[in-house]
Amino acid sequence: MMRSIGQALLAPTLILCAALCALPWSADALAAPAAPAADARVGERLATAGQLPRVPACASCHGADGMGGAAFPRLAGTGAGYLSAQLAALAGGGRDNAVMSPIAKALSDEERSAVALYYSRLPARALEAPQGHDAGAWLAARGHWSADIPQCSQCHGPAGQGVGESFPPLAGLPTAYIEAQLTAWQKGERPAGPLALMQAVAKRMQPQEIAAAAQYYGAFAAPGMTTPAVPVAQTAPAPAASAATSGSVAPTAVASGAATTFQPPSAHAIPDTEMGKVIRQGEQIFLHTGTAAKAYVGNRLTCVNCHLDAGRLPNAAPMWGAYGMYPAYRSKTKEVDDFANRLRGCFMYSMNGKAPPYGSAELVALETYSYWMAHGAPTGEKLPGAGYLKLSAPQQPPDSVRGRAVYDQHCALCHGADGQGQRVGGAQAFPPLWGSQSYNWGAGMTAVNTAAGFIKANMPYGLGGTLTDQQAWDVAQFMDGHERPQDPRFDGNVASTRKKFHDSRYSLYGTMVDGRLLGE
Amino acid sequence: MMRSIGQALLAPTLILCAALCALPWSADALAAPAAPAADARVGERLATAGQLPRVPACASCHGADGMGGAAFPRLAGTGAGYLSAQLAALAGGGRDNAVMSPIAKALSDEERSAVALYYSRLPARALEAPQGHDAGAWLAARGHWSADIPQCSQCHGPAGQGVGESFPPLAGLPTAYIEAQLTAWQKGERPAGPLALMQAVAKRMQPQEIAAAAQYYGAFAAPGMTTPAVPVAQTAPAPAASAATSGSVAPTAVASGAATTFQPPSAHAIPDTEMGKVIRQGEQIFLHTGTAAKAYVGNRLTCVNCHLDAGRLPNAAPMWGAYGMYPAYRSKTKEVDDFANRLRGCFMYSMNGKAPPYGSAELVALETYSYWMAHGAPTGEKLPGAGYLKLSAPQQPPDSVRGRAVYDQHCALCHGADGQGQRVGGAQAFPPLWGSQSYNWGAGMTAVNTAAGFIKANMPYGLGGTLTDQQAWDVAQFMDGHERPQDPRFDGNVASTRKKFHDSRYSLYGTMVDGRLLGE
Repeated sequence: MMRSIGQALLAPTLILCAALCALPWSADALAAPAAPAADARVGERLATAGQLPRVPACASCHGADGMGGAAFPRLAGTGAGYLSAQLAALAGGGRDNAVMSPIAKALSDEERSAVALYYSRLPARALEAPQGHDAGAWLAARGHWSADIPQCSQCHGPAGQGVGESFPPLAGLPTAYIEAQLTAWQKGERPAGPLALMQAVAKRMQPQEIAAAAQYYGAFAAPGMTTPAVPVAQTAPAPAASAATSGSVAPTAVASGAATTFQPPSAHAIPDTEMGKVIRQGEQIFLHTGTAAKAYVGNRLTCVNCHLDAGRLPNAAPMWGAYGMYPAYRSKTKEVDDFANRLRGCFMYSMNGKAPPYGSAELVALETYSYWMAHGAPTGEKLPGAGYLKLSAPQQPPDSVRGRAVYDQHCALCHGADGQGQRVGGAQAFPPLWGSQSYNWGAGMTAVNTAAGFIKANMPYGLGGTLTDQQAWDVAQFMDGHERPQDPRFDGNVASTRKKFHDSRYSLYGTMVDGRLLGE
Repeated sequence: MMRSIGQALLAPTLILCAALCALPWSADALAAPAAPAADARVGERLATAGQLPRVPACASCHGADGMGGAAFPRLAGTGAGYLSAQLAALAGGGRDNAVMSPIAKALSDEERSAVALYYSRLPARALEAPQGHDAGAWLAARGHWSADIPQCSQCHGPAGQGVGESFPPLAGLPTAYIEAQLTAWQKGERPAGPLALMQAVAKRMQPQEIAAAAQYYGAFAAPGMTTPAVPVAQTAPAPAASAATSGSVAPTAVASGAATTFQPPSAHAIPDTEMGKVIRQGEQIFLHTGTAAKAYVGNRLTCVNCHLDAGRLPNAAPMWGAYGMYPAYRSKTKEVDDFANRLRGCFMYSMNGKAPPYGSAELVALETYSYWMAHGAPTGEKLPGAGYLKLSAPQQPPDSVRGRAVYDQHCALCHGADGQGQRVGGAQAFPPLWGSQSYNWGAGMTAVNTAAGFIKANMPYGLGGTLTDQQAWDVAQFMDGHERPQDPRFDGNVASTRKKFHDSRYSLYGTMVDGRLLGE
C-alpha cells in the first residue's frame, strides 16, 4: 500500500527547531558503546560535515538535529546498535538503498560505529502523539493479537520513542519510510532483524494495517503541531477476520485463524455508561498497574506482563478464562477464594505489593473489567486457553546452564543480559524477570512448570511457540533460579517456609543454586 | 401406590409412653379457641371416656396420649381449627370414613369443637426424624419445585410438628394414613382444604413421591426409636422428569414441564470436597439464615423466604440468575457493586441486620453456593426467570382496601391476620411481612411493583400464578403500606430520606397510610 508523497507534509514540522544544545557526554552515556570501539567525535564530524567527496554530511538529509524530514528517517536518539546494524546491512548486508548503500559502503567499520554512537546520543525532540488515528493508535497501543501482531509500543516504547540499543524510535519517522520498511520485511528485502522478530510481525500485517501504523507514527509531531488524521480508507478498523479486537462483542467462540477459543469483547465495545467507566478504570489498572493502582504495587511489573493482550490472549492466563473459575478452593491458600481475593493474591505476590482492600475502587474495577471480558462465558467451566499452557514433563530435567544459553540468545534482547528488563522515559519498557523489582517468591510464576508453559506459549514476545519445549523448561529453570523478593508468608526460616509453601519439585525456593540458598 | 399394611409396624413405637402429664391451661393457650365456643372439659370427657353407646372414647383408637397408632392418626398437638374442620367434613362435608363418619355425625357442633380443642392442647410427644429415607426427607425438606411441589416442612413445620390452626402435624402419622389422604385428595375424596392448597399439591405428586413422603413421616418415632428405612423401589430418587432436583448437574437449559429455564445443579450434586464443604455451608446459611449467619441477621426472615426452592426457583430471584449479573452499576447504590457487595446489601436491608465483612466465611460461602448453582450459566447474560416477575402496570391503581380483602382471603392462612407469620418450636414457620421482624425500608421488597411481581409468581406458597395481576398489585400495596424497621440510610428526616432513596411511585415510605406517616 503506497502512501502519497503528500504525506511528507509532516517533514517541515520535524525540522522546525535544531537541537544544537551541548550533548551530555556523561560516563553513563558512554557506558554502552557499540563494538568496535567508536569515537563519537569522529561520528560528529562525519554527521555534520561529512568527508567530501567520499561521504556527504548525514545532516544534509537527516537534519542538523538528526530528526529527519521528508522521506528521511530520524536518527537522533536511536540505539547505536540498531544504527550500526543498519549501516552494515546497507553496506552489503541485505538492505539496499540507492542513496544510502554507496555511502554506507564508503564508511569503514569504525566510522559506521562512530556515526551510530553520535546519533544515538543526539537527544530526540519530544514528539506528541496525533489525535484521530484510531486504527493506527490501536495497533500501536494494543496490537492485533488474534493475528499474532503485538502492539508496536511494547518494543518501541509507549510513545514510540524507541527502547535501548535494538528497538528504534517510530514516532516521527516519515509515513512512507515506515511503510517501505514493513513492506521490505514482507518481501525479504531487509534483514530479518534480531530474532527475526520484526520480519515475522511484518509478515502478519495486512496492507491496511501497515498503512494505519505508518500513518499514526508518521503523524507524531512537536507539541502543538500534530496534524489531523488524513481520512484514508485503508485506515478503517481492522478487517472482519480480526473481529475479536475490532469491536465485536459476540460472546460465543468463533473460529479465528488457527484456534477456536472464547472471544472476549473488544475494548472498543466498552459502553459509555457508569458501568463502562469502571470497566475502563479496570482496564487502565490492568495496563498501567504501577501508576493506576500505585498504592498496591511494589515492583516494576504490570498485569499485562503476564496477561498479554490486555488480559485477552489465550494461554496467557486471560481474564475471561479466570473470572468464571472462582470462587474455588485453592491448595495455595487452603481455602475457598472468591475472584476478588484471587486478585488480591496477584498484588501480594506477582506485584510484590499489598492487597487492595475488598470493595476498594481498584479491586472492584479489576473485577468488573474481568467480568466484562468474560461476557457469555459459561460460569464454572474451564475454557480452552484459560490459564497457562500445560507442558508435558521435559525429556531432560530442566537445566539452568542450557537455560542461560537460551536466555542469552532469545530473551536478553528485551529483558537485558542482567534480567532487569529495560526502561525508557522513566517507565519500564520490558519487565525485570528477577531481583528486587520482579515478582516475589510467593508468585505462581516461581513454579518452573508454570513459567515454562507461559514462556513456551508466549515468548519471545510476538514469537510464541518458537522455542522447543525443552528450551522453555530450561530457560524457566534459569529464570526462576535467581533471587527475588521474599515470600510474604516467610516464617523466618527458609527451610520451613519451603516446606509449608514450596514443597514442590518445581520450586527452587530454598534450594542451592550457584552456591546460593534461594530465598535467604 | 398402595403401601403394605406391614408398614404399620411403626405403630407400637408410637404408643409406648402415654403422656399423662398435666396440661398447661394457661391464658395464652385459651386465647385462640375454635368457633363455636368450645369447652375443653367436654372435649376431655368425650376423648377419654366417650358417651356410649352414642360416641366411643377417641382414646380407644387414637391412644390415651392422642399420638395415634396402627392405622390411626395422631391428634395430640394438632390445630383445633384443622380438627374441627375434619370432624365437620367427616360428618358429611365431603370426607367419608367407615369408622369416623358415624361418630362425627353423632357429635354436635359444640362437641366437635370441644374435642378439637382438647386434642389441640394435648402436648405432642417429641419425635425424631428417621435416617435413610432420602427421597422422602428430600421432599419434606426441599420439595420438588420443578413439578411445583413445595417442601412439606414449609407448612407442616421443620420437624413435621404442624403449624398453627390449619397445618396438622405429619411426623408420626401412620404411613398408610398419609398415603390414603394424599390419594384421596387426588381423587377428590377429601375436601380440598384451605385455599385448596393441599389438593393442588397432592395432584402434582407422583405415586412414588406420595409413598416416599408417607414413609418418611411415618417413620418419625420417639428419640432412639426411629426405625431404619425400608428399602422400597418407589422411594428411589425422583423420576427423570425431575432431573433438576434429583442429581443432574447438566448446566444447560432443558425443557421441564411448561417452562424452559436454566437448570441449576441439584443439592444432591454438591461434591464431597473442600469446595463442597463451603457450598454446603452457603446452602445452610441460605436455608437457615438466622442461625447459620446469626451475627448478621436482625429479623426473623431467611433467604428462602424470598428466594424459593433454596434459591433455585425461576421468578423468585434465583441465585443462578443473580450471580452472573454482577458486578453491575446499581442506581440504588450509585456505584458498581460486585456480587459480594450485593449480598451484603441483602443483610443490611432484607435481613435488617448488618453486612458480613468481605472475605468472611459467611459471605464467601454464600458467594460460593450461588456460583455453584450458576454452573454453566453465561456470564453477564440475563436468563429467563432471573429476578422477579415484571408485571405490567395494573389496570386500576393498586388499592390497599381491596388488598386487605385479598390478604384476608389468600395470605392470612399462613402469614396470620396480623401479618406476623407463625412460629413453631421457637422457630419462624411463616415469615412476618411487616413490623419489627420483617424487612426494613431499605429492602427491594418495599417497592410495590417488586412485591407484586413476587406475589403474582409465587404466592400463595405452592399456588403461584393463581392471583390475578390486579390482586397481586393490590395485596402488595396493602403489605407495603405497613410500618417496618427504618431504612438504615435514614438521614433523620423522612421527607428527605424519601427524596434520596424512595423517590418512586412504587414506594410508600414517607407517605401517609391510614393516617400514619410511614417511616416515622
